[in-house]
Amino acid sequence: MSNTQVTLIQIDNYGPWTVTPEPRREADLQTLQSRLYADLAQLFGDREGYTFFARFDNMIAVSNGIDMAGHARIQESIRNRYPVTLSLSVATGETPATALSTASAQLQAAGSAQDARRQEILKGSPLSASDRRDDDVQIAHFDVNDATGKYTDELDAFATFIRIEQSYLELMRYLHDEHESLAFFVGGDNMIAVGADLDHDDYTRAVQHVDEVADVDLKVGVGAGETAQSAGMAAKHALETCRRNGTTVEGPIPVPQSD
Amino acid sequence: MSNTQVTLIQIDNYGPWTVTPEPRREADLQTLQSRLYADLAQLFGDREGYTFFARFDNMIAVSNGIDMAGHARIQESIRNRYPVTLSLSVATGETPATALSTASAQLQAAGSAQDARRQEILKGSPLSASDRRDDDVQIAHFDVNDATGKYTDELDAFATFIRIEQSYLELMRYLHDEHESLAFFVGGDNMIAVGADLDHDDYTRAVQHVDEVADVDLKVGVGAGETAQSAGMAAKHALETCRRNGTTVEGPIPVPQSD
Amino acid sequence: MSNTQVTLIQIDNYGPWTVTPEPRREADLQTLQSRLYADLAQLFGDREGYTFFARFDNMIAVSNGIDMAGHARIQESIRNRYPVTLSLSVATGETPATALSTASAQLQAAGSAQDARRQEILKGSPLSASDRRDDDVQIAHFDVNDATGKYTDELDAFATFIRIEQSYLELMRYLHDEHESLAFFVGGDNMIAVGADLDHDDYTRAVQHVDEVADVDLKVGVGAGETAQSAGMAAKHALETCRRNGTTVEGPIPVPQSD
Amino acid sequence: MSNTQVTLIQIDNYGPWTVTPEPRREADLQTLQSRLYADLAQLFGDREGYTFFARFDNMIAVSNGIDMAGHARIQESIRNRYPVTLSLSVATGETPATALSTASAQLQAAGSAQDARRQEILKGSPLSASDRRDDDVQIAHFDVNDATGKYTDELDAFATFIRIEQSYLELMRYLHDEHESLAFFVGGDNMIAVGADLDHDDYTRAVQHVDEVADVDLKVGVGAGETAQSAGMAAKHALETCRRNGTTVEGPIPVPQSD
Repeated sequence: MSNTQVTLIQIDNYGPWTVTPEPRREADLQTLQSRLYADLAQLFGDREGYTFFARFDNMIAVSNGIDMAGHARIQESIRNRYPVTLSLSVATGETPATALSTASAQLQAAGSAQDARRQEILKGSPLSASDRRDDDVQIAHFDVNDATGKYTDELDAFATFIRIEQSYLELMRYLHDEHESLAFFVGGDNMIAVGADLDHDDYTRAVQHVDEVADVDLKVGVGAGETAQSAGMAAKHALETCRRNGTTVEGPIPVPQSD
Repeated sequence: MSNTQVTLIQIDNYGPWTVTPEPRREADLQTLQSRLYADLAQLFGDREGYTFFARFDNMIAVSNGIDMAGHARIQESIRNRYPVTLSLSVATGETPATALSTASAQLQAAGSAQDARRQEILKGSPLSASDRRDDDVQIAHFDVNDATGKYTDELDAFATFIRIEQSYLELMRYLHDEHESLAFFVGGDNMIAVGADLDHDDYTRAVQHVDEVADVDLKVGVGAGETAQSAGMAAKHALETCRRNGTTVEGPIPVPQSD
Repeated sequence: MSNTQVTLIQIDNYGPWTVTPEPRREADLQTLQSRLYADLAQLFGDREGYTFFARFDNMIAVSNGIDMAGHARIQESIRNRYPVTLSLSVATGETPATALSTASAQLQAAGSAQDARRQEILKGSPLSASDRRDDDVQIAHFDVNDATGKYTDELDAFATFIRIEQSYLELMRYLHDEHESLAFFVGGDNMIAVGADLDHDDYTRAVQHVDEVADVDLKVGVGAGETAQSAGMAAKHALETCRRNGTTVEGPIPVPQSD
Repeated sequence: MSNTQVTLIQIDNYGPWTVTPEPRREADLQTLQSRLYADLAQLFGDREGYTFFARFDNMIAVSNGIDMAGHARIQESIRNRYPVTLSLSVATGETPATALSTASAQLQAAGSAQDARRQEILKGSPLSASDRRDDDVQIAHFDVNDATGKYTDELDAFATFIRIEQSYLELMRYLHDEHESLAFFVGGDNMIAVGADLDHDDYTRAVQHVDEVADVDLKVGVGAGETAQSAGMAAKHALETCRRNGTTVEGPIPVPQSD
């Protein structure tokens, strides 16, 4: 049974800030957002978490193993270096989707995302050490079969981009609606899902669904671990096995038992 | 008549690099990609261009006003500071889509995106100074009506994210298929399109289409200019007018004539 | 008795890289160096360490509490994101200077800093958990009395800069020669020393020495702790006490005993 | 006759900010400062300028060719992305030192560096296009002879660091007092001076002075140009000639005449 800890990361009152007193240059906003995300990827990643950019003003981290002091430190580091601040809401659940729902509700209860007085909320409760197990997190790493040969080197760049976006939208909806799981586009032809204990057949069906609806062939490696980093690295190795063996789904890889 | 100059930016042989000799940590890859994008946003932005992250390994810039020496300087700056290199392909066209098609074909002719020997391609031809006019670029800046009130503060974060992604996919496909224009998600509830001389009614129909198919209400400000930056800033001001007046489409704003 | 753990950080074969195949643009080298340092400040800082830029190609961290796995992770993160790699050498000693001597000798034994085959050395041994105590690190935070009023707002910027540099050189030499301690300029009018158990009178004499030789008035707050971060934050608070009370030396502050 | 345009860059009210409401973590301040410098190195460098970190809260750029609009754009970009703002003061003069004195006086006249109400000053006048010539800037690039063999690979890291600092202090004082020129340490064993039309013998004597007083052997390549970038790149090539030929001073290289 998975036990995902999720952190919802929201830039405080960001929309109004981007147009006050006048609309700010887009190049600067893009730089600000992507560097802020890069720093969060490092700050959570250094603590074995995965961070997804999602909408950039609302980001999502898988934060198993990171306590509230760690979250407070991340919040402080951003406050000390950026012109904006962050609110963080932490929750756990048997599925990633329910965890994120709880995290969302906690933050909404504290006030609107565009309320200038709602700043640096830090709410929620992380998994206690005694509740953590070495398969709490399931990560599935997808990519598109021969994306370079079939798309990047053949179609024009925007046609390829549309195909990738379409396949991502189908995957994110399917995994969310059928399996309460959260899928994210992470660049190139890669998508990473935080899964709710899906098995091999579940992933086979997900890949088939995307093929039928969006006509894009995916493959996927699946791993589990105590943290996003260990589960994700197992998933990456499983995906390399797909590539070597020509298989579509590898994993979930059982976690090696320590005793 | 628009005259968009587009630059296709491709990280050389990136996919293989991410798994050689072993898969690299996802947190580091995310940091690398988003900082590389942030630097390109500044390097093109400093020269009045707009850069879109798209798939991160294939990015797209609107580069009117930037000559080949400027592109070579951008390529050099990245080579000097990153473990990866970039190929750049520059093209123009009466529509953004045809410009990008030409840029794509030029790069594909130079070799595969995953050919280790194809490095730092720099191809294409920018607009000559004599062909430039002060309405060469049309930028449309969209956002979602009351996204915070209707979605961010109400739905859970992933449900909101799916809605935004869905509306973006519909908008990108519609503008591409109907108008040879290129739309990009830029964070929050914002999408920016590089347009091929669409008029007020064209934008009204695009907004209606997204409303019908994805049930998301957009509004849009449209501007034109000699560069992406001047067109984009006019679009931002037009969008503020929408917000103040409760209108759905403002613009295209005619370019002020200098004499 | 202090027990400082020091990490010598050296960019591998950096000099030759900066001029191969041709001299690289200075603006890019400056950006590369200062961002690499910024990332190390975060990576060590996130683990309660302090990092000093020193010569930028040879940096020095106070790394009490960071084990070899942590160092390896820092090395990996830089390798994944920069065009250069790092060698790290870790050592401990009763004085910071002897620790750094040991770290230097370990790295020199592995080959020359400009040997292209000597890459990513990781050597040394951190303090074992059982040897750590809550006053292992002594940090002294100096600044110049009324630097803004007496210098920045009065002299021209370079004359001020010469004064600050001169006072720093005197401080670094005095503390190194008399007390086997390591002082670093950290920006503005601030200098931070990693001390070898100096007492209140030692710091008073150090301040007097700088006043006599360089005619610059310093004040200093001194703290101790299990890590650079805890010692350094105590030192900052002590320096604020100097500012409030008009005193020249505050501390060393005894560490609160946990039992 | 040189004609250096200098920009004094000052972080507004920075000292008080670093301790308000409580002292901020040193790791975050170091990251903030060095990234801010890295961005300025790019923003000025992209416009052919050189930027020196100096005290980090007071930085100095050689900005020939950058007009007030360019300076305003740099100021805006930082304001949009950092929690601090910058004041910029631009001046020219026959010697770099007199230019910087003028720039300092202009900024001091606008208020104290620690006055919270003095924000984003932008003052001064750049060289008019008609006054610019292709040898306005003289750059001298110094390094230490065999620094790796004699110091880095032999002495402990701090002893080497003291030697480099000492040689830098002597060089900066000598060039400032004797030649109204500005020398900066730029990392490794490199120092860059912005010169006031020194000739070959002047540089020979400067090198001799440092050898006598600090017992450190320097060599230097000197270039001239319309901008810091062109002068600096000529200087780097001249320094490579020193390295190849075993000479101590190469240059000043006369600027190639365009007709």
